Amino acid sequence: MTHAKPLAQYMQEVAQRVEMELDRLLPSGQTQPGIIHEAMRYSACNGGKRLRAMLTLEAAGLLHGNGEAALPLAAAIEMIHAYSLIHDDLPCMDDDDYRRGKPTNHKVFGEGIAVLAGDALLTQAFVVIGRLPELTGISAALTVQVLAEVATAIGSTGLVGGQVADLQAEGADPGDNAFAMLQYIHTHKTGALFRCSLRTGGLLGGLTPAQLVAVDEYAEQFGLAFQITDDVLDQIGSAEALGKAVGSDDRSRKLTYPRIFGLARSQQMAREAVEKAQTALEPFGSHAARLIELAQFIVERDH
Amino acid sequence: MTHAKPLAQYMQEVAQRVEMELDRLLPSGQTQPGIIHEAMRYSACNGGKRLRAMLTLEAAGLLHGNGEAALPLAAAIEMIHAYSLIHDDLPCMDDDDYRRGKPTNHKVFGEGIAVLAGDALLTQAFVVIGRLPELTGISAALTVQVLAEVATAIGSTGLVGGQVADLQAEGADPGDNAFAMLQYIHTHKTGALFRCSLRTGGLLGGLTPAQLVAVDEYAEQFGLAFQITDDVLDQIGSAEALGKAVGSDDRSRKLTYPRIFGLARSQQMAREAVEKAQTALEPFGSHAARLIELAQFIVERDH
Repeated sequence: MTHAKPLAQYMQEVAQRVEMELDRLLPSGQTQPGIIHEAMRYSACNGGKRLRAMLTLEAAGLLHGNGEAALPLAAAIEMIHAYSLIHDDLPCMDDDDYRRGKPTNHKVFGEGIAVLAGDALLTQAFVVIGRLPELTGISAALTVQVLAEVATAIGSTGLVGGQVADLQAEGADPGDNAFAMLQYIHTHKTGALFRCSLRTGGLLGGLTPAQLVAVDEYAEQFGLAFQITDDVLDQIGSAEALGKAVGSDDRSRKLTYPRIFGLARSQQMAREAVEKAQTALEPFGSHAARLIELAQFIVERDH
Repeated sequence: MTHAKPLAQYMQEVAQRVEMELDRLLPSGQTQPGIIHEAMRYSACNGGKRLRAMLTLEAAGLLHGNGEAALPLAAAIEMIHAYSLIHDDLPCMDDDDYRRGKPTNHKVFGEGIAVLAGDALLTQAFVVIGRLPELTGISAALTVQVLAEVATAIGSTGLVGGQVADLQAEGADPGDNAFAMLQYIHTHKTGALFRCSLRTGGLLGGLTPAQLVAVDEYAEQFGLAFQITDDVLDQIGSAEALGKAVGSDDRSRKLTYPRIFGLARSQQMAREAVEKAQTALEPFGSHAARLIELAQFIVERDH
């Protein structure tokens, strides 16, 4: 299927709709205590690419071609993403001063408020999930399924588990189990939320369990391609495009694909993952067109 | 109604059941990554009083006299309580080295893991709520109601909001709005979770909206009595009984009831709140006996 709109325009428009939805679903900066809502909005409403939200919306449209009803869920997932970035950037974690070219949350609001802003964004995502029947008309039964998917994906054996492994790997010499460790970190820290975005979108879109298996395969390969590309960009990208110090992963001796496999082999691995991701969605025909484009996009992006 | 069991024995037995339920509902220390599950269990399975769990169980039994089915929900609420304590104790918040006489989570596991253990406990509470239909046989519709109650109670306009106000009040001179600020902090930081424990227990126990209003009144007065007593104990209690430095609230110039009203008037206010709490539950007759005893207990405790 050919789209009238180029991918860049599509992505910009979706990002705007997600931004508006976040604005609608987050308490305003006037709501007391104002500082926490300012801090939440600083990190959640920051004009990011909204990849996860797009995955949710597109997965929700795989059967019928329109997943717009999943917009509140997509916004909730972006709240979770924002929470994880705020906490990852803390001095006691990755200790980053900049994120997307802007000072990180704790640099602006202080560490205490940053911890609480992350906590509150995570919690607000569950507030929104609890409102899905009212906001999107889905059943309570489906809402509970979405809740279970999300909470399991981002807990101690999912997203948080990946961050724990990342924290422990920092400064460690890559030994015999370096690749297993690298894979664990990526499939959990980044992959779990991609997979959750797609699966919960798919659930809202009425996918069968068998169809969700195809979505899982796409998710896995998409996540892999994304992370390899992130590692590659950190190695070769420009500081300006990335909005953070280039080579920072290397300096802290983090495990990365280029460190283990070299640059050329890493780039080849990313391309292979994209092909597998695209193949997985063939059964959905033209409704999968944007997801197929998005997989291509993530290995071709420059930031 | 007279109970065969004295309150102390009842409390000990309930605390044991809650501890076992937490053990059942938290991943084991052998689950990878082991360190995060050890850290979660260190703070969640620590033999606390389990007041919040008791409130949930007793509220669930107000109509029919047995709220045992609410045990998984009660454990989920204790996970949330444990998360809030871990984050409150962080150096960037209250900076406490001890909690209940034991080193705080970050003193044992480091700040990074402590932040993540709090995140994971909060998330695990939502995993458990998502499993309530399976664990307790309640409907998906009721589960969504519980989810909404919990998430709203503990977010940026609830528990987290209270912690934000507490953080901002620290070191501030108590001015004209000192009492309003004090009340905001207590009703949010401590009161919101007490109220949520009671209301969600009541929801599981089949209370009508009118009956939940009575429970709300109990919750409000219980929370007030609890916090005044905490402030009073900090002023007069012994370091041994409290497991933390006495007078620490005073040293950091935090707003407290004794600071504003003096000790005697504060104690009187706590007793009045207990009476109001007890009056609110009169319509439930003998099924409210333990909640009435618990309200008395919290102003008479010495730690």
